[in-house]
Amino acid sequence: MAPCRLDFWFDFASTYSYPAAMRIGALAAEAGVKVRFRPFLLGPIFKAQGWTTSPFNLYPAKGRHMWRDLERLCADLSLPFRRPDPFPQNSLLAARVALAGLERPPGEARWGEDFCRAVFRAEFGAGARIDDAAVIGDILAGLKVEPRPVLAAAQSDAVKARLRAQTGEAQRLGLFGAPSFVTADGELFWGNDRLEAALRWAKRVANSL
Amino acid sequence: MAPCRLDFWFDFASTYSYPAAMRIGALAAEAGVKVRFRPFLLGPIFKAQGWTTSPFNLYPAKGRHMWRDLERLCADLSLPFRRPDPFPQNSLLAARVALAGLERPPGEARWGEDFCRAVFRAEFGAGARIDDAAVIGDILAGLKVEPRPVLAAAQSDAVKARLRAQTGEAQRLGLFGAPSFVTADGELFWGNDRLEAALRWAKRVANSL
Repeated sequence: MAPCRLDFWFDFASTYSYPAAMRIGALAAEAGVKVRFRPFLLGPIFKAQGWTTSPFNLYPAKGRHMWRDLERLCADLSLPFRRPDPFPQNSLLAARVALAGLERPPGEARWGEDFCRAVFRAEFGAGARIDDAAVIGDILAGLKVEPRPVLAAAQSDAVKARLRAQTGEAQRLGLFGAPSFVTADGELFWGNDRLEAALRWAKRVANSL
Repeated sequence: MAPCRLDFWFDFASTYSYPAAMRIGALAAEAGVKVRFRPFLLGPIFKAQGWTTSPFNLYPAKGRHMWRDLERLCADLSLPFRRPDPFPQNSLLAARVALAGLERPPGEARWGEDFCRAVFRAEFGAGARIDDAAVIGDILAGLKVEPRPVLAAAQSDAVKARLRAQTGEAQRLGLFGAPSFVTADGELFWGNDRLEAALRWAKRVANSL
């Protein structure tokens, strides 16, 4: 049987990645699917198609709907919601720290996924600035993780290279937005709305191979 | 009590308007919500934001995902699927005929909604060209509607003006894509994925006013 696995690709600056990150744990557990959190940067991908900022800023009518839609969605999910300013946030530091946490050596405490959820909650639930090392440090401390060595590791050449490689992989996979979900057989699902369908596909792949 | 009503805005060229049009009847009946079919043209709205064709053509990665996603969606809904060529189709004639059918005088047979569903099925289920008067004529004949007078009425100044007015209203409502759903209190929901939420909202509005 193939691995019942789903890759969860997200950018911390991405609005709909917030509900996806908060929902995926319970839904994947229920479906028996193992999820890999894969932070990447949308910036280079947007730049390659000529966008210098979020499409929600470039197309104001689309942006207005997105904020209202996200607010409704969070209310339905009982998630706190507060629009961050500025938008989009610079997600580089958060992505590097997340990678450092997600890729800890075997045997060491794994706090990566909790960190990701806490970043999304701070950013879109409390309106915090996630490009601020003090905010990221507070999030780490709240998870009982010593901030100083993690923040230092996040600025290491190794972690920087890992994030560049991960973003390159996202580009090669044809990702064009976040959140995106990719199954073991390479099927791509884009958007928080597609999380359930992606989990169903991941199960089907595992059962059919 | 306020009217339990939902406006369903769509363009016949819009891919995700196909599953929305096929789903909305049964879901609205179940929810006790009265739906108004409101065809409009996305072209002028896209042009106003600098697009000369569908964003699915402008952004190929997004387009690739959309076609695959629509195919999966149709399979889940047991709807036929065939990609029309060219895409997008010119939807002007179909929209005018639809308006002529949707706005029939009281007492005359109302075939507008059936026509809309049949156009979507011909276009995205069988790959037919909906800018072809013969195709539209066949669809009308299949609904036991005499094609010739309807095709003539669709080219009348009155119907042309009605479609321009309807498209102008869509612009004033801030619509930026299709399908879109608007409740009696002006709440906007964009996308086939939001149909269920829009129906819930429409019910809530009716109950609270």
